[in-house]
Amino acid sequence: MTTPGTRSELPVVLLSHRGPVSFERDESGDRTASRGAGGLVTALTGLVSDLPDAVWVCAADSEEDVAVAAEREGKAVQVALEPEARLLDADGDGTAEGTPTVRLRLVEVEPQAHDDFYTVIANPLLWFLQHGMYGLALAPVLTKREHAAYEDGYVAVNRLFADAVIEEVKARGGRALVMLHDYHFYLVGQAVRERCPEALLSFFLHIPWPGPDAWRVLPPAWREQLLTGLLGNDVVAFHTEGFARNFLLCAQELLGLPVDLEAMTVQVGDREVAARHYPISIDVEAMRELAASDAVTGHAEALREEFCGQDRQLILRVDRTDPSKNIVRGFLAFATMLEDHPELAGRVSFLALLQPSRQDVPEYADYLAEIGATVARVNAAHGGEGYQPVDLRLAADLDLAVAAYTVCDVLMVNALADGMNLVAKEAVVVNRRASVLALSENTGAHQELGAFAVTLHPFDVQQQADALYEALTMDPGLRRARREAAARVVEENDIAKWLTSQLNDLGVTPGADR
Amino acid sequence: MTTPGTRSELPVVLLSHRGPVSFERDESGDRTASRGAGGLVTALTGLVSDLPDAVWVCAADSEEDVAVAAEREGKAVQVALEPEARLLDADGDGTAEGTPTVRLRLVEVEPQAHDDFYTVIANPLLWFLQHGMYGLALAPVLTKREHAAYEDGYVAVNRLFADAVIEEVKARGGRALVMLHDYHFYLVGQAVRERCPEALLSFFLHIPWPGPDAWRVLPPAWREQLLTGLLGNDVVAFHTEGFARNFLLCAQELLGLPVDLEAMTVQVGDREVAARHYPISIDVEAMRELAASDAVTGHAEALREEFCGQDRQLILRVDRTDPSKNIVRGFLAFATMLEDHPELAGRVSFLALLQPSRQDVPEYADYLAEIGATVARVNAAHGGEGYQPVDLRLAADLDLAVAAYTVCDVLMVNALADGMNLVAKEAVVVNRRASVLALSENTGAHQELGAFAVTLHPFDVQQQADALYEALTMDPGLRRARREAAARVVEENDIAKWLTSQLNDLGVTPGADR
Repeated sequence: MTTPGTRSELPVVLLSHRGPVSFERDESGDRTASRGAGGLVTALTGLVSDLPDAVWVCAADSEEDVAVAAEREGKAVQVALEPEARLLDADGDGTAEGTPTVRLRLVEVEPQAHDDFYTVIANPLLWFLQHGMYGLALAPVLTKREHAAYEDGYVAVNRLFADAVIEEVKARGGRALVMLHDYHFYLVGQAVRERCPEALLSFFLHIPWPGPDAWRVLPPAWREQLLTGLLGNDVVAFHTEGFARNFLLCAQELLGLPVDLEAMTVQVGDREVAARHYPISIDVEAMRELAASDAVTGHAEALREEFCGQDRQLILRVDRTDPSKNIVRGFLAFATMLEDHPELAGRVSFLALLQPSRQDVPEYADYLAEIGATVARVNAAHGGEGYQPVDLRLAADLDLAVAAYTVCDVLMVNALADGMNLVAKEAVVVNRRASVLALSENTGAHQELGAFAVTLHPFDVQQQADALYEALTMDPGLRRARREAAARVVEENDIAKWLTSQLNDLGVTPGADR
Repeated sequence: MTTPGTRSELPVVLLSHRGPVSFERDESGDRTASRGAGGLVTALTGLVSDLPDAVWVCAADSEEDVAVAAEREGKAVQVALEPEARLLDADGDGTAEGTPTVRLRLVEVEPQAHDDFYTVIANPLLWFLQHGMYGLALAPVLTKREHAAYEDGYVAVNRLFADAVIEEVKARGGRALVMLHDYHFYLVGQAVRERCPEALLSFFLHIPWPGPDAWRVLPPAWREQLLTGLLGNDVVAFHTEGFARNFLLCAQELLGLPVDLEAMTVQVGDREVAARHYPISIDVEAMRELAASDAVTGHAEALREEFCGQDRQLILRVDRTDPSKNIVRGFLAFATMLEDHPELAGRVSFLALLQPSRQDVPEYADYLAEIGATVARVNAAHGGEGYQPVDLRLAADLDLAVAAYTVCDVLMVNALADGMNLVAKEAVVVNRRASVLALSENTGAHQELGAFAVTLHPFDVQQQADALYEALTMDPGLRRARREAAARVVEENDIAKWLTSQLNDLGVTPGADR
């Protein structure tokens, strides 16, 4: 690893499961390209689009992605990002002068292996485990299916992507900054190190890392392999110090390795691996531009009309219908608050903008049903005379969500566990009503914004009810001051800083033109 | 705390929720006394029945217990233990010459407070949490009920018992060895220390102690209070080193206290608290006497007839129907083994002797139903022509269980989490068929007996199926050698050693006659 203080210039090889652009065919048979959404993709596109020698390795997600990869014989392709994403000709450097481009290596994965990798192991097994969502009495049950999926899916797919990364690193002379992302690729670091010992390997995890007990749910061979794979990196980074400590405790308790919780390192043979934390963030400027757009202001007008009349207040939540988001307890807390403070009935509404998620997974389908059942019970118990306490809208509508951010009085984020939670950060920078953030202590965001929020304890419905009441009745001046302070924190720690801090600590300047 | 090496003579004040004797009225209105069952009670009765100055503080469990306590105005009573348990007259020392006696202080708890303490907080909340049984998506939900139950139940009842302990310690001049037991009484140690600073305080936990994440499910105020309460003791002891390490990690991660994982201590102000481990065990001689009794040998004859004919083999499990025991996955593993090795169908039976448990708790009632449903599915899929693969018997019958220990070929213990698991220890000392122990890595017993067992990974049904097959087909000589080695471990680490090790480490000789 580079000595702190020195800075070396290295080309960047990036790996994440989803890439920044995906290809399709439109009705007339023409190839189209669409930009990916999501925090990670947005964050990293900025980095690699500035670097002519960078490459982004990701899964070929669509049939057309596979076709594009095949046309170029698995080599990287160049994609212009503006004004619309479009594929450039082979070695198309220069043909998109002045517009940002990104070099993509689309890795084709055989469908059965991808299914094993993605829908049996990574989601739900690792996701559930890392969010503490297993009631161990009956789930998980590891059978032949899971064992095969681990070997033929997770391990095989990791090997496939490791091979692609290794090829790209070798094409750059063996020296590169390799940035690996998320729980899909725990095994890649070690594989790349073995073949490219001069590479600087950095891993970033976007979801929680629980303590040793949670990992004991996995067969010993798996958990040791996953940890050992991660320890192949030079740096393993998380959103919070708590997750980084948990990672070191896992190395200590599950592998018996010596760790230093002051220096935040673990000794692996003659190497030292650092556990670090960098809270991810949002593109503040882009979010504010979106909030000012006609589409959003139109929605905001309608929402104000509906929910924000004289003496009325609006609680908002914006989430995927993932059990980790703790949506059901949120409604129970709202109902408890209405019971404890009946004077609020008719005055306070709860708007829940929920994007249905992973409905092919039974636990997610059951959870969506439980959400619907709970809303029905709350509305039947507390509604009437034109007042519907909870307005549940199941759809993904970013414009509407941002409009709701601007007009809400309280944003509720009560997740059981959440790596960061960007909804909290988005809302505080665009809200215009001095809204209060009601934020779970189990989110990464709570480390930065907790001081300006009303803290929620995610399993304690009564406490959440009390906290919602506190938020709704807080002095307007205090509310405004806190909202502004929170917004400043996000402005100062935006997505650009998330990246530059990592690069600074690594002592690396991403490579310039060759 | 006494310096190691020196030994001081101290009277003993013991606290556990259940005591060694409970009183009733029979049909003719006469007072009767019955000995309690369970490992803890058996273990400790031996200790205090030898010590005239010892006292055992416990809950008045029955109406008649309350009446006995009232007659003596809350003072301790003296009970003779043999040949039948019976209450002695006030200050009845000497009236039972030659028979062991125990001094009991029965603490009356107001029913509502006891219900809050016992059926809302200790079971299921702490039990579930400490056995990893919450799927956090929907449970637990902490409402007003739980908050009130914590304050008016758990905290209040701990205070009540602390007061009784303090009174007994003061009656002994303020110097005593105070031995506190189990998850019902996390808060007592600190309370006693405040009022009796000269007492030597030792706490023993009989269930698992999970790492910090699990405790984060509780409201911060509760988890800090529970930990701080425990840290009022001089020694906090567990069944395994793993649990002791988890306890120190909790002090470190949740309270920010400095811990030493080599010395196994935590610094609390100017005091040092030790985390130790002493694996509890059984009374080997008593178990072997029981195994030789007519009642047991009669049952054993019948079981041999039914399950142990030419070329047949018997898998046994003996458990309460507690989800932590992992009964459903055990049957799934057995079914998987029959699928993988159809030649075993008709030859191998699975006898499950299950004692229904806590059926007033919905999760337990649901789990019992799932057990029944799973057995029906397995028997329908794999049975026929006089062969019923699983024989499920729902009852508590110690004689039958011990008989089954003697004749089984494999004893399955696949618990999700289990402080110790004494079934494993009982079976290896009385078995007569060179049975193989198939033992979960998540039991305390695995630390001692794992080397002579086939290890089970409790969430991995395929692995358990493979392990059962390995056990059934193991070379008979190896089986015998392992069974005998395991029995020797239990013989050498019996219940007497569990106690004497603790007393030796404390540097204490329990007080002799005054």
